Formats: sequence, structure tokens, C-alpha cells
Amino acid sequence: MEGTFLQSVKYDGEKLYILDQTKLPEVTEFLEINKIEDVWDAIKQLKVRGAPAIGIAAAYGLVLGIKDAPENNFEIFYEYFKKQADYLATSRPTAVNLFWALNRMDSCAKKSNGVPVAEIKRVLEQEAHEIRREDENVCSSIGENALTLFEDGMTVLTHCNAGGIATARYGTALAPIYLAKERGMDIKVFADETRPLLQGARLTAWELMQAGIDVTLITDSMAAMVMQQGKVQAVIVGCDRVAANGDVANKIGTYGVALLAKAHNIPFYVAAPLSTIDLETKTGEEIPIEERAAEEITAGFGKSTAPEGVKVFNPAFDVTPYHLITAIITEKGIMRGNYSEELPRLFDK
Amino acid sequence: MEGTFLQSVKYDGEKLYILDQTKLPEVTEFLEINKIEDVWDAIKQLKVRGAPAIGIAAAYGLVLGIKDAPENNFEIFYEYFKKQADYLATSRPTAVNLFWALNRMDSCAKKSNGVPVAEIKRVLEQEAHEIRREDENVCSSIGENALTLFEDGMTVLTHCNAGGIATARYGTALAPIYLAKERGMDIKVFADETRPLLQGARLTAWELMQAGIDVTLITDSMAAMVMQQGKVQAVIVGCDRVAANGDVANKIGTYGVALLAKAHNIPFYVAAPLSTIDLETKTGEEIPIEERAAEEITAGFGKSTAPEGVKVFNPAFDVTPYHLITAIITEKGIMRGNYSEELPRLFDK
Repeated sequence: MEGTFLQSVKYDGEKLYILDQTKLPEVTEFLEINKIEDVWDAIKQLKVRGAPAIGIAAAYGLVLGIKDAPENNFEIFYEYFKKQADYLATSRPTAVNLFWALNRMDSCAKKSNGVPVAEIKRVLEQEAHEIRREDENVCSSIGENALTLFEDGMTVLTHCNAGGIATARYGTALAPIYLAKERGMDIKVFADETRPLLQGARLTAWELMQAGIDVTLITDSMAAMVMQQGKVQAVIVGCDRVAANGDVANKIGTYGVALLAKAHNIPFYVAAPLSTIDLETKTGEEIPIEERAAEEITAGFGKSTAPEGVKVFNPAFDVTPYHLITAIITEKGIMRGNYSEELPRLFDK
Repeated sequence: MEGTFLQSVKYDGEKLYILDQTKLPEVTEFLEINKIEDVWDAIKQLKVRGAPAIGIAAAYGLVLGIKDAPENNFEIFYEYFKKQADYLATSRPTAVNLFWALNRMDSCAKKSNGVPVAEIKRVLEQEAHEIRREDENVCSSIGENALTLFEDGMTVLTHCNAGGIATARYGTALAPIYLAKERGMDIKVFADETRPLLQGARLTAWELMQAGIDVTLITDSMAAMVMQQGKVQAVIVGCDRVAANGDVANKIGTYGVALLAKAHNIPFYVAAPLSTIDLETKTGEEIPIEERAAEEITAGFGKSTAPEGVKVFNPAFDVTPYHLITAIITEKGIMRGNYSEELPRLFDK
């Protein structure tokens, strides 16, 4: 851990340190890992979560996995490498970023054919660092851009966890908060607890407290009153997917917060890495919304909180229409208003 | 229990039956009580909750308490009566309705001076029944009035519990739902779980299910999406206090729901017995908002769901401004819009 910037995945050249997110918020424990099997286990058991963090853990996992690979010739080395990569891929077969990172390491290995194997191992370690660094850069660029919208002394409200522990560092929605702290600015946060899975209470409140940032936890039902009383001057959230017209799918409850912000004339910002912008999806209506198990609502706290057999509606995400979004903040700049025209330009070479 | 109309407090001339609300929703248990000490305990331990229900339980508690009172002369009887009433008053010294009911029984006893004591006991039992009946009438009148605003086949959303188990019968906000059921109309309900104390999940969903009413439980954060998808056509909630201008204090989260309803052009109704209308309070700004313990949010389920020591804002109520309220429904009629003029008229003789 380095002061205010908690990294959930970190490699020191020998050991991989992974923050065990399943133990939060009660216990802060870093796993000290020196073999690939333990990385597999950490991904499988959701000890590391968040798409970017999983990709980074996988890349470093491969670095650990090839430490003892034979160095005499490339073919034998590559066969060994491939076996390790395939093994890691079985840890969480639905995690897109896991495959993305493993493929990128694979391309790097193949490109290095001809170089001495001992050197290839160093190149792959550098590639893992690079994957981590690029994500950190994306997050810090989002933070830089978002920070131009914030002022010293402000209080912002956030929903769910789009924080540092899901990424290399800084997070997306929380990036400007961390950057502000780094620069001695005082930005306070209200964190919605985010039912049903309580990512706001368990993760956002926790990581902001670790960084010494002033955070106040509220239930989702209190956001309106907090705005009514003038306690917050902006809202910032992350996102799962941005459609071509600027509609945003994010954790359930986001749409409600956007409506409340509008009613109080409070700007509503979405932090969105380019990787979440999907121009193939025309509007939010095309985004399928996963419905999850009733038990997340009725028995999410280790104890039953609703009548047995009650009918439950439990959508995991909602869609916030573009017109409620004051700005979409990406690593390449801030989009405002005319998203259908602005978003495609982000992908121009 | 009588079919669809669950009564949380019921006296059969011998025993008092009190629904143990502390065991809901897991266990439906009626305490069978035949002595005043057990009524004291039920009030003290919050086994009976809701202002009207507490008053009714206290009145019947006194009836049980004077069963063995000496009948030879009024003074001795009244001394005995007073001792029982004073004892019951210590069960929950902050419950206004408890004192209201005990005082009313006291007036009734004093007025009966001169009548044979055995007869006074019968008169007091009738008075307890009358207290119960009056509350039932208030609730059913609210239900009748509210029902004129609803249509067969509608779905309504409610927040917290303004239901039958807090009153003699029917409840306030839920009264039209029960009346509709009684008349063979099909009105469905979405119930917000109502964090932090989950009255919606534990009580509203439970009592509607008991009555065979189609209820769907959601987290508070899902109300916006439910409205966005056109799943509800009206919102109805209860209230703690109505100010002279029509501002309404009610369970935290109500104000947010009112804003969401407005944004979706869905009518937002408040069910308010005259006893909650306080013309001495000019506007909602004068209503003090109780802030409650952080643990209700951080450890409300027998397990810690937030970091130790996290700062928490936990207001128990919020204030919904009059302009967001489509109508206030009382037992004497429906008020619409110009509350400052309409509300005082309710109290004209």
C-alpha cells in the first residue's frame, strides 16, 4: 500500500499482492502470491474483482506461471507458456478482460520468437506492467478530465463502486477524488450504500476511508434529502456500457439518482473509459438487463429480511437516458450533450 | 384472523390477541394474553407497533387489568383502575397514542361514577371496542376515498408500512388496496423495501401476502426503473405529520419517490388521518427530523455491512413539499392542491 493510493493488484518482481476483496470491509488483507495456482484461485473466488483488476492479475499470474519454464528453446517454452495461459483462462470463463489480457500476453510471447527465452520472460513481465500502467493511465486521465469540473471544497455523491480497487489505481468515477486528494484539494463524498449488494457501503466507503477522504455513507433512499439540503454539488458514477446516443447502463439505482440530480439542478457526470463505449449499441433500449436472484434482496445479509416466497423484481442494472447526463468523461476528453456526434470522434485515429 | 383482513390487536371478551410484529416476517405468531402484565410487555418490547395499534392494545390492556378489581364501591374501584393505568403508561413513555387511549379510558371511568362497578367494567370494555372501531372507521373511510382515485387492474407503489397491522384494520395507505380486494378488484402493489429498517420488506410485503394481494418487493433504488418501465400507475404512502401548507413528513425515502413520480407523471398520493394534520406547523421546515444511530445502516442485519467507524447520515424522515403531492386523502375527503385553504376546513365543526 502506498499512502493514499491503494492498489488492489501489485507485483514487486517476486511476489504478487492481491487485496482480498471478499473480506472487505471487515478485514483488509493482501494475499502474498508466488505461484499461478493461487492467482487462479483468487480470480475464481472473486478475491480480485473489477474487469481491469482481473486482467492485470491474470497478466501477472502468467508471469509467475512461466518463472520455471525451460529456457533452452522457444517451442518448448511457448508450449509451457500456453499451458499456463489456458489454465488461467479456466478460472472465470465469463470475464472478458481475463481473456483480453491473456491474449495480449500471448501475442507478446509469439512476437518475441527468436529472442533468448530468459529475455522473453523479462519482456512478458514488462508487458504485464504495461497492461497495468495503461489502465492506470486511463483512470488518471479520466480523473484529470473530471477534475476540471470539480472545485476545492465541493461534496460529490456517488453510487455503487467505480473505485480504485476494481482497476489498476484511481478507479473511474473516484479518480478525480483521489487526484484532488493528491493535490491537497478537499473534496468530500456521499456514498449510496447501493442495494442489494451494498458495493457503496462495503467497497466505496472503505477505499475512500483508506485514502483518508471524507466519506459519509447513506442508504439509497437518502440521496434525495441530501440533495434537497444542498449537501452535494455534483454526482459522479461509473458505467457498464455507453450506447451510441449517450444512454448509459450502470448499477441499478443510477437512473433514479440521475432524476434526483436533475430535479435539484445538480450536474450528473458519468466516468466512462473508451472500453465501455459501444457504438454498435444504438440506444439504451438495446442493452439487455440481467435480472438476478430474489435472495440478493430477501436474504442478502445472512438473515431473512422478507417473507418466504415473496415475489421480487431484481434488475442488476438500469439505463439512464442521455438527456439526464450533464457530461460523459472519458480518458480522451469530456463529451457534453450531443453524444451521437461526439462519441464516434473518440475513436478517430 | 379473518380472511383478508388481518387484525394485529383483537379482543374476544376473554383474551387479547396481539400479533407479535418482532417475529415478522419469519414467524406469524399471535400472543394470547389474559393479564395486563403481558400487554405491558408487548408494548414495551415493540411486539405491537404503530400509534393506533398501541392505543388499542393499551385500552384492552386496561380492560384485562380491572377484571379482578373490587366491585363494592367506586372509589376503591377507581383507585385500582388508576394504578393499572399508571402501570401501563410506563411501558412506552414516548408513545403519544398510549396516553391518549389511557386518558380516554380514564374519562370514561370517571364519567361512570354512580353506576354499579360491574356495569362500569362493561362500559370500559365497550369504550375499548369503540376506540378500536373508530380507528377502523378512519382507516376504512380513507380507503373509500382513496379508492375513488384507483381503477381495477392498476398497480401502485408504496414506501414503508402504512398498513393494517399498525392500525385497527386496513391501515391508511394500504386501506384502498384491502377494500379493492374485498370488492373483487385487482390492484397490484410494488413495495419498496425501505432501508434502513426494511418496513416495506418485513411488514408491507408480509401483510399484503397474508391478504392474498399480488405484491412485488423491490429495493428503494429500483423504484425509478419500475416507473420508467410503466409498471406502476400511482404511488400512495402514509405520513407522520402534515403541515398547514401540505408539506408531509414521512419515512426517509418518501421525498425521493415523490420526485421520481413527478418525473414520470405518476400521481403521488398521501393517506393522512386527521390526527396527523398539524395546523400549528406552518411548513415542513418546522418539522424536526430525528437522526438515528449509524448502526441501523452499518449493522442492521446482524452482520456488519460497512467499514468500522464509517461516518453515517441517518435521518429517519424526510419532508415532501406540497407541490409534489397530487392529493392528500383523509377520512373526511380528498384535498387537492390548495392545501393551505383546504386543510383547515377539515376541522370546521
